[in-house]
Amino acid sequence: MLAEIITIGDEILIGQIVDTNSAWLAQQLNLIGIKVKQITSVSDNETHILESLQQAEQRADIILITGGLGPTKDDITKHTLCKYFNTHLVFSNEAYADVEYLFSKFGRTVSETNRKQAEIPESCTLIHNYNGTAPGMWFQKNNKVFVSMPGVPYEMMEMVTTSVLPKLKEHFKTPSIFHKTILTQGIGESMLSDLIEDWENSLPNHIKLAYLPSPGLVRMRLSAYGGNINTLEKEVNHQIDLLLPLIEKYVYGYNDDELEKVLGSILIENNSTVACAESCTGGYLSHKITSISGSSAYFKGSVIAYSNIIKEKELYVSSQTLKEFGAVSQQTAEQMAMGVLKKYDTDFAISTTGIAGPNADGTDKPVGLVWIAVASKEKVFSKQFQFGDNRERNIQRATIAALAMLRKFILKQDIER
Amino acid sequence: MLAEIITIGDEILIGQIVDTNSAWLAQQLNLIGIKVKQITSVSDNETHILESLQQAEQRADIILITGGLGPTKDDITKHTLCKYFNTHLVFSNEAYADVEYLFSKFGRTVSETNRKQAEIPESCTLIHNYNGTAPGMWFQKNNKVFVSMPGVPYEMMEMVTTSVLPKLKEHFKTPSIFHKTILTQGIGESMLSDLIEDWENSLPNHIKLAYLPSPGLVRMRLSAYGGNINTLEKEVNHQIDLLLPLIEKYVYGYNDDELEKVLGSILIENNSTVACAESCTGGYLSHKITSISGSSAYFKGSVIAYSNIIKEKELYVSSQTLKEFGAVSQQTAEQMAMGVLKKYDTDFAISTTGIAGPNADGTDKPVGLVWIAVASKEKVFSKQFQFGDNRERNIQRATIAALAMLRKFILKQDIER
Repeated sequence: MLAEIITIGDEILIGQIVDTNSAWLAQQLNLIGIKVKQITSVSDNETHILESLQQAEQRADIILITGGLGPTKDDITKHTLCKYFNTHLVFSNEAYADVEYLFSKFGRTVSETNRKQAEIPESCTLIHNYNGTAPGMWFQKNNKVFVSMPGVPYEMMEMVTTSVLPKLKEHFKTPSIFHKTILTQGIGESMLSDLIEDWENSLPNHIKLAYLPSPGLVRMRLSAYGGNINTLEKEVNHQIDLLLPLIEKYVYGYNDDELEKVLGSILIENNSTVACAESCTGGYLSHKITSISGSSAYFKGSVIAYSNIIKEKELYVSSQTLKEFGAVSQQTAEQMAMGVLKKYDTDFAISTTGIAGPNADGTDKPVGLVWIAVASKEKVFSKQFQFGDNRERNIQRATIAALAMLRKFILKQDIER
Repeated sequence: MLAEIITIGDEILIGQIVDTNSAWLAQQLNLIGIKVKQITSVSDNETHILESLQQAEQRADIILITGGLGPTKDDITKHTLCKYFNTHLVFSNEAYADVEYLFSKFGRTVSETNRKQAEIPESCTLIHNYNGTAPGMWFQKNNKVFVSMPGVPYEMMEMVTTSVLPKLKEHFKTPSIFHKTILTQGIGESMLSDLIEDWENSLPNHIKLAYLPSPGLVRMRLSAYGGNINTLEKEVNHQIDLLLPLIEKYVYGYNDDELEKVLGSILIENNSTVACAESCTGGYLSHKITSISGSSAYFKGSVIAYSNIIKEKELYVSSQTLKEFGAVSQQTAEQMAMGVLKKYDTDFAISTTGIAGPNADGTDKPVGLVWIAVASKEKVFSKQFQFGDNRERNIQRATIAALAMLRKFILKQDIER
């Protein structure tokens, strides 16, 4: 069962908005076992829309169309759909009741422009829109299904969840797909691929592996196709059981787990608190930790010690250390972590100090050099990293490395030098 | 001149990642006067990629392809391009030198898997990748240009900026376009549009205005088309001279100026220093300030005071204030700013305290309520904001509001209540 998604509207083609609708739609379709073959963004142009419909119909069984349904002139989708399905617009009392209801909620009467929203192609089935004036439209042609929906995300999402997905499930007998994503940190895509080559080569044909790298992290997605969903889940989990011994030390979670969320859960389980002493990451580490709702349960606060005076005065880094080893050194990193641990009275602490770049710091140390330390009341551990010369990426990668280091430190796992 | 963008990779089709590359590419192409006809996302499948190339070639003059170039097995783009252009892979010493250089930067030698990255189709021109191992490839066929690039955003972006756009401008004689963007903060798109309606209506036909809103900011881009580029520049600047008196208090910069960069320049000019005391923004404000290279000249550091104990102990917020007015209050915000100013001995300080959400803080204060204070040795000023219930957006908007407030405070401009 294949689907295509067509988005209509110039705002995507000039890059004014990012198409988040399609990703969301694709996720929803995957969950009910419908594979998305292609996503296409086209302009508000009749010929172009007709061409994309024709091509999509040849490739897919289900065509979901979003956008181009507003009451203003540049929205020509509805007329184009009439042409494509050889039908014409009729006034729908049912659609008009929805529009009227919506206006009445805001104490307003329906304007002439909005009255037109209730005109729909005669051959379609109405899909109710409870959040906006543009109705959804369900068409069937040669055993294929076309659904046209507005582009406003929350209108489209509500329509899909309450009407479109149930109707698709009923209309098609959908095959099963089971996905599971393994999240790794501390190893690159190609090293990972070398490490698991034999395992990957022995995967059964109906289970596929995809690598999804992002700065400092590699996600590995396993997808199993066809048959009973519980069997597929078991098969995928069996493959993961075989895989884990090869890469266990790099795995921090599954599916949508974020490293900062995984770390937060561990801190909550351990009833522990954390503080940070940041130099080169400049607040980004604290930001990632506090991006998780509920982080106030374990995060007490941080010292962003950008200047050496702050490192000395607020984090008790000795002036002797700064003179002898410099701000970017193992000694400074460890003293920073121990300093904030003591000062903020937490169970754990993380520190970062490095040269984010792109320019050097006036010493002979290279751009991208970062020292990270993690500390508890009993122990301090530090590690050196050499990143590149892109400031933004160095900050991101140091932050991910720091989060991963604390996770391993708390779990008493070995941290590779 | 029409372009198409093709993204290759199942991760977009299962909705695991949102396609942000295409929006960025579309923006870049628009800026040099190339219109994007269609954006297509296809799977890692040879037949499907070939079909999409054929169809794109019929519609457009320029086809930009991203994704599917990693060293691992699920990436089949390179072989498919060979088939399409009737050529074969050859080992490129030039591409290999790039890969080797990249590995040497990290003190590593090139693995066998990565050696393969240096194989490129014989008929293509190499586009250097200075940030990753997958080379870019430039093909010409029947007077049309095809460029294949990796899907990793920062690799692709660097490639486009330094190689692809200049080559496209040279190859196609692109018409002259002059753009200038006016950056505003503190006013919404529709209020802005009402304010400048007469000016906008009197713009000459060859000068277009586009509104580009993002959380907390609205950018206004003026684009002038055709003829001599210096004349276009003069015409746009003349229009801006007419516009400025209407909106001057909202304007903080032009083109790529970032608010945090503008603020940094002002601090450098004034030979002044700054520190932050962050609660609800959790480090994001410090991160934005330190995202600017050279910020150590004016940024000394911050206290991230997530817990009330840290607010009291480290920022001298009185326990009486916390009891009486709560952590999210004018009094707490002002004491935080004054506290960090004194403690870190800076000329200026910013503080934030609020309820980022999505959940309330146990008081009767609404989610999204934020107090921001700015302080100097002589004066403290604070302001209340009411944002929405999305945590990420609240943190972003509070940070932008805080940066903008300090800018106006230093420049002694009125800050609207």
